[in-house]
Amino acid sequence: MNEAGYMSLALSLARRRKGLTHPNPTVGCVVVREGEIVGLGYHERAGYPHAEVVALEQAGDRAEGATVYVTLEPCTHFGRTPPCTDALIRAKVKKVVVAVQDQNPMVRGKGIQKLQEAGIEVVTGVLEREAYELNEDFFTYVTKKRPYVTLKLAQTVDGKIATLSGDSKWISSPQSRRFAHRLRAEATAVLVGINTVLRDNPSLTVRHIPFERQPTRVVIDPELDIPIDSDLVRDGIAQTLVVFSQRKPSKEEGLLRLGVQLLHMEEIDLTELLGELARRDILHLLVEGGAYTVSTFIREGLWDRLVLFQAPKLLGEGVSLSGLGIERISDCLNLKLRKGYRLGEDMVFEYVPVMERRLLKW
Amino acid sequence: MNEAGYMSLALSLARRRKGLTHPNPTVGCVVVREGEIVGLGYHERAGYPHAEVVALEQAGDRAEGATVYVTLEPCTHFGRTPPCTDALIRAKVKKVVVAVQDQNPMVRGKGIQKLQEAGIEVVTGVLEREAYELNEDFFTYVTKKRPYVTLKLAQTVDGKIATLSGDSKWISSPQSRRFAHRLRAEATAVLVGINTVLRDNPSLTVRHIPFERQPTRVVIDPELDIPIDSDLVRDGIAQTLVVFSQRKPSKEEGLLRLGVQLLHMEEIDLTELLGELARRDILHLLVEGGAYTVSTFIREGLWDRLVLFQAPKLLGEGVSLSGLGIERISDCLNLKLRKGYRLGEDMVFEYVPVMERRLLKW
Repeated sequence: MNEAGYMSLALSLARRRKGLTHPNPTVGCVVVREGEIVGLGYHERAGYPHAEVVALEQAGDRAEGATVYVTLEPCTHFGRTPPCTDALIRAKVKKVVVAVQDQNPMVRGKGIQKLQEAGIEVVTGVLEREAYELNEDFFTYVTKKRPYVTLKLAQTVDGKIATLSGDSKWISSPQSRRFAHRLRAEATAVLVGINTVLRDNPSLTVRHIPFERQPTRVVIDPELDIPIDSDLVRDGIAQTLVVFSQRKPSKEEGLLRLGVQLLHMEEIDLTELLGELARRDILHLLVEGGAYTVSTFIREGLWDRLVLFQAPKLLGEGVSLSGLGIERISDCLNLKLRKGYRLGEDMVFEYVPVMERRLLKW
Repeated sequence: MNEAGYMSLALSLARRRKGLTHPNPTVGCVVVREGEIVGLGYHERAGYPHAEVVALEQAGDRAEGATVYVTLEPCTHFGRTPPCTDALIRAKVKKVVVAVQDQNPMVRGKGIQKLQEAGIEVVTGVLEREAYELNEDFFTYVTKKRPYVTLKLAQTVDGKIATLSGDSKWISSPQSRRFAHRLRAEATAVLVGINTVLRDNPSLTVRHIPFERQPTRVVIDPELDIPIDSDLVRDGIAQTLVVFSQRKPSKEEGLLRLGVQLLHMEEIDLTELLGELARRDILHLLVEGGAYTVSTFIREGLWDRLVLFQAPKLLGEGVSLSGLGIERISDCLNLKLRKGYRLGEDMVFEYVPVMERRLLKW
């Protein structure tokens, strides 16, 4: 196997834990000596050993003189576990191949430098793009101090998200809805506006697919209208955070007693809210609607990825994205289509903003 | 080469003349004797010899005992040229391979039967689907007595066809716009509503690509508002047909004097209009908008294909398809995605109605 082959294996190990390591990144590691794989590892979850440590432990003495493939630049700092650079140096590996540097400006390059200073050969950039995309949410979180924001929309061919009466069940196919649960499982939190709660009484939990953890549910609810008997309040399946402005002491008390978390903001400002969610270790936020909520994130430029399910249907009248304040075609927000594929009878697209700050230069 | 190979060659010959043979279908023919191609032919245009006759002539004496691959069932009737079945029988070919039967219920199977009665072996259904799609417009025209209707739309990711002020220049990329000229070249006529004329003063001609013929331009203009100095009236590049209700004798006279054709209808009914266009040998109509006109064709169920250019842009406010009278998601019009591909930075989709009458059973 060549370098890309081993790194591809390390990436596939990392992918197994996607969505489960927050607020840490997802990392995989492969240790190879004389063409033989002697250690495999991935980061299981925050507080558990890092991928490099797991793989080195498996390799034991055979790590000496080996080449280590790791999907992310090894850390140099003490967190809940000691630095991986020290472990690699102690194990006397000969060479470390790194897919992508840690994007945190405070850290970037430091791990590589430390290894090199210890006489270890370091190669970077092998499957860099794949490794970057795998932890793009983490990189956004550490560099922007806010969660990576995925917007999810299901629409008809003519761009309608719901009927005029608000009905949106079910625009997309069963396969797409199952895929939407995967998006939830990969997110740290799921956000909707209060109108979606009032209309659909959604549970916003991960179902229909294997999962280990439920994302936190966040509701933007300025007037604290959330019904005390709604599933989000009552079901106890996952944490629920209600963001509100208007004080209603007895309702607040009732919600708190039922285990709901409350976040009071004089005025609901999305930038501030995202900062607060980041402080609560939410590194990836999935915004599920409705149209007004999604439009607001877009208008404020606070999003990183749009996952669009397009169903082969025409609706005509209906609700679509609005309120972006754009009056001319030439002022449209430009997107970049990163992926597009068929899923059942639907098409799925992943768009990213064209103006997004590019952390890597490719 | 096997049967599919020869038929594929015949199809590619036929494709060269797509859009140029109306009101006849597009047909290609290959004559093969003992593994050698001895004749190639395609139908050049109405009034010219049919593909079989061209290919047989090229083959000369070598047609005797040969196998003939033809993309469409040979005709049995005298039109502007004598029947192809007679030519095949006279040439003493041994075998005829037909991709698809003529879909006209009055004709279907008759050509094959006549050949068989003359002792010629006939095989059908080789590359049937490709051959069906190549002449789908013709088949619709002969079976429904109306033009095949292609709807063309260019929209943003959020389904907007134009800004609130009606601006739609340029939603799609230069590559998509060039492809749109190809759609025009393949159509017999191009239709818009009067508002598009008043707003954009379009020429609706084929440009930017090689072409031999300009489609007729059709404007739905109930109150005969078309400006006497608009390009459609003045440029003389192609025929223009204005469909109107309100009598305005002096304006009518002025338009007629400038070579514009007029079609008066007490009330503009699309079914009647399409019947009238078919009687004028228009077998493929491209509807280019605007939103109201396209929505009307959809609402009336008078369309066969939707070609959708989707640009990687978000607009928010704007005009989209409307007026279909659908109130619930479960009542959406269901489409089938036949093709989807990238073109420049856009996506292009070809949707067909799910309920379309299936002429073939595959």
